[in-house]
Amino acid sequence: MKAIYPGSFDPITNGHLDIIQRAAHLCTELIVAVLQNSEKQSYFLIEERLDMIKKATQNLKNVRVRSFEGLSVELCREEKADCLIRGMRDIGDFRFEWEAAQLNKNLGSIETLFLMTNTQYAFLSSSRVREIARLGGNVAHWVPESTHKYLFPSKEG
Amino acid sequence: MKAIYPGSFDPITNGHLDIIQRAAHLCTELIVAVLQNSEKQSYFLIEERLDMIKKATQNLKNVRVRSFEGLSVELCREEKADCLIRGMRDIGDFRFEWEAAQLNKNLGSIETLFLMTNTQYAFLSSSRVREIARLGGNVAHWVPESTHKYLFPSKEG
Amino acid sequence: MKAIYPGSFDPITNGHLDIIQRAAHLCTELIVAVLQNSEKQSYFLIEERLDMIKKATQNLKNVRVRSFEGLSVELCREEKADCLIRGMRDIGDFRFEWEAAQLNKNLGSIETLFLMTNTQYAFLSSSRVREIARLGGNVAHWVPESTHKYLFPSKEG
Amino acid sequence: MKAIYPGSFDPITNGHLDIIQRAAHLCTELIVAVLQNSEKQSYFLIEERLDMIKKATQNLKNVRVRSFEGLSVELCREEKADCLIRGMRDIGDFRFEWEAAQLNKNLGSIETLFLMTNTQYAFLSSSRVREIARLGGNVAHWVPESTHKYLFPSKEG
Amino acid sequence: MKAIYPGSFDPITNGHLDIIQRAAHLCTELIVAVLQNSEKQSYFLIEERLDMIKKATQNLKNVRVRSFEGLSVELCREEKADCLIRGMRDIGDFRFEWEAAQLNKNLGSIETLFLMTNTQYAFLSSSRVREIARLGGNVAHWVPESTHKYLFPSKEG
Amino acid sequence: MKAIYPGSFDPITNGHLDIIQRAAHLCTELIVAVLQNSEKQSYFLIEERLDMIKKATQNLKNVRVRSFEGLSVELCREEKADCLIRGMRDIGDFRFEWEAAQLNKNLGSIETLFLMTNTQYAFLSSSRVREIARLGGNVAHWVPESTHKYLFPSKEG
Repeated sequence: MKAIYPGSFDPITNGHLDIIQRAAHLCTELIVAVLQNSEKQSYFLIEERLDMIKKATQNLKNVRVRSFEGLSVELCREEKADCLIRGMRDIGDFRFEWEAAQLNKNLGSIETLFLMTNTQYAFLSSSRVREIARLGGNVAHWVPESTHKYLFPSKEG
Repeated sequence: MKAIYPGSFDPITNGHLDIIQRAAHLCTELIVAVLQNSEKQSYFLIEERLDMIKKATQNLKNVRVRSFEGLSVELCREEKADCLIRGMRDIGDFRFEWEAAQLNKNLGSIETLFLMTNTQYAFLSSSRVREIARLGGNVAHWVPESTHKYLFPSKEG
Repeated sequence: MKAIYPGSFDPITNGHLDIIQRAAHLCTELIVAVLQNSEKQSYFLIEERLDMIKKATQNLKNVRVRSFEGLSVELCREEKADCLIRGMRDIGDFRFEWEAAQLNKNLGSIETLFLMTNTQYAFLSSSRVREIARLGGNVAHWVPESTHKYLFPSKEG
Repeated sequence: MKAIYPGSFDPITNGHLDIIQRAAHLCTELIVAVLQNSEKQSYFLIEERLDMIKKATQNLKNVRVRSFEGLSVELCREEKADCLIRGMRDIGDFRFEWEAAQLNKNLGSIETLFLMTNTQYAFLSSSRVREIARLGGNVAHWVPESTHKYLFPSKEG
Repeated sequence: MKAIYPGSFDPITNGHLDIIQRAAHLCTELIVAVLQNSEKQSYFLIEERLDMIKKATQNLKNVRVRSFEGLSVELCREEKADCLIRGMRDIGDFRFEWEAAQLNKNLGSIETLFLMTNTQYAFLSSSRVREIARLGGNVAHWVPESTHKYLFPSKEG
Repeated sequence: MKAIYPGSFDPITNGHLDIIQRAAHLCTELIVAVLQNSEKQSYFLIEERLDMIKKATQNLKNVRVRSFEGLSVELCREEKADCLIRGMRDIGDFRFEWEAAQLNKNLGSIETLFLMTNTQYAFLSSSRVREIARLGGNVAHWVPESTHKYLFPSKEG
């Protein structure tokens, strides 16, 4: 099974990494696809987001990292992938994911498989991590090490 | 990927069949495992439930049907399966499935992958089908043909 | 618009009465239909439930009270009603109501219209009222006066 | 029963049209009222939104289309309408609708009646349609024909 | 603040113990009150449930354990407690707890304070623990040590 | 128990005031802490928001009102508070509050206690109040008297 895990990863969190590691076990190839959305400003540059994920996943042999623009269903066709993979942290994620999965099924017959995020990361999101880092809180336990230098640039320099 | 789709299937509905067909596409082997729960009376006998599913899935080459008792994690070990597969009809299924997935992850490091049920079957459940059939309503569009003779025995005889 | 408000009303609460009063304003005729379920034991007899509702709604000229068995869609056909009416107390009612509405639409092209229960009754249900009355709590503010004598028989005698 | 179906309709989808058709059956007159919100930029002009709806509903004799600004309760008073009509696609719509219905009941004793959107349109929203159209996806099955030329202007020219 | 933590505790889990430990920090006295419900059969005897909790909380100086029958509001009056304490594991607990809190506020002006269960116990419930123990699964990490001998009597004998 | 009730209070509503009054009963000291968020524009100035709350709570002897910037956990440390207090209006508030409570527990071992907002205010939010006031609706019953002059400046002048 060749699968694509699409997302913004702005930045990648340990919750995302948990999904990548578990999905990589079930797939022959897993592509982590970072959305480049021309309509919505991201906090980190696309190059930074790709770099953080590549470093965090470098010991996973069947994981490839790339960027994409446009519809997930087009990406699946281009990559000849069998399905999309998404994580669900809690019931609050359900509706958005349900709508997206039904849309992708209707738009391009693309299946979406869901994994439940490990409970210890269920309250994490990229936006929470950014907000807490901005206010000086310690988010070191919530993001992969490769992400630290982007969130705490001065300390790493 | 070898996967197990566990459930009561009392009886199998077109919602279940939708999940089986789509999951079979993504797996090398899919085992539909019918729960025999000694503590809870089922409406149909285990033999009837197995028979209905076998007939409904006979043209799916990589699907096997069997019964099981006890914990899903033990079943996974016995079958050397990579993961469990479950369908989610709507947000009302979330909590039960989330708890079961977290338990199985903690009990035996077993992953659960979820597919969203096709919207046209999202309001179906085995208990609704049984109740409406009992009251004389027409459920022919909601269950596979192999299930009709069990729900409408006199009409088929 | 001729509408049917089906339910168990075991017993009628002020939440139910709120829905009846508001729906009666919008309909030419409103039929309150009390379910007689041969498979499930009710706490009050069907005669008692009908009697409580008739007394509580006697000043509403376009409201009729009756019992029914079987499917709501058959009842709608028999009464030539335009739709079903149901109340929703809070999000916890959503899934059951959504499934029932979709089933009735599919089974018999019957529409269901929903009203939101007044917030002051949103935490009330027939089962909560019965349980609290059984434990000696004061539920007089939560049920119509016509229901008191059934819940507090000795005090009324 | 004279009812108002208020919304942004930016643009109208087949989910909206489904609600309009079903509500029109239950009402003597149904007014589709398009919100002109001076605080929030819409994607389509108010004239475009009105035009799309008028064309999509032209064969429904008891449906009238108009714009409005301000509070729904004022609109109801002005039109002497009996109630508001709203669709609910899934549980994700519940909270917003529940709050709005309770506010309108408290602000102006205005009732809101809800219909459940047909399951085949439950994952549709105006914003999803706009986003997918922008990315080049095919949304022709999700909007009325009268809306195509606004979403695919070049193809229609 | 003197508080009461009511529940069935059939049996106590590590999720319950987490709430007790955290609530005890915030209260001058915390009473763990075990419900003896004459209408509903419990799995463990009331003496067993009291014993398990007493052992699990023996090093918490301001915690007292007792049984009760009837309404929580009566218990609060009898104990002159300031409020009830309840844990919420996830959104699935919300509705039941919301209704109970509103009822207790209306019945007897009793406040309920909620704590969120630690995420590592969020999927645990007494009924899940009993079911898994019955099927031979290892629940040792999910209940206090004082509960083991009741769930695995032969191993402890 | 010394507690902090943090929020934006833009403006304070009767729902907020309900939580303040009830929490003040359970605490030795309650600090209402108004968030000054440099990243997000508030509708009312911080001085206005503080002033409205001070006036609305002036007869509550153990309530203090202050502003804060940054993380709630830092505020708790600075004030040596035992916990945070938050209100939940309905299930729609659950997810945000659950995430924030788990984050604060993980970031700084800070507990959060929740009270359920009185049902009569459950549909109120500061943003709804602002929107309705802007459109000329009467929100006098939904905010404390001290807030009227800010929402209806001309009428008070």
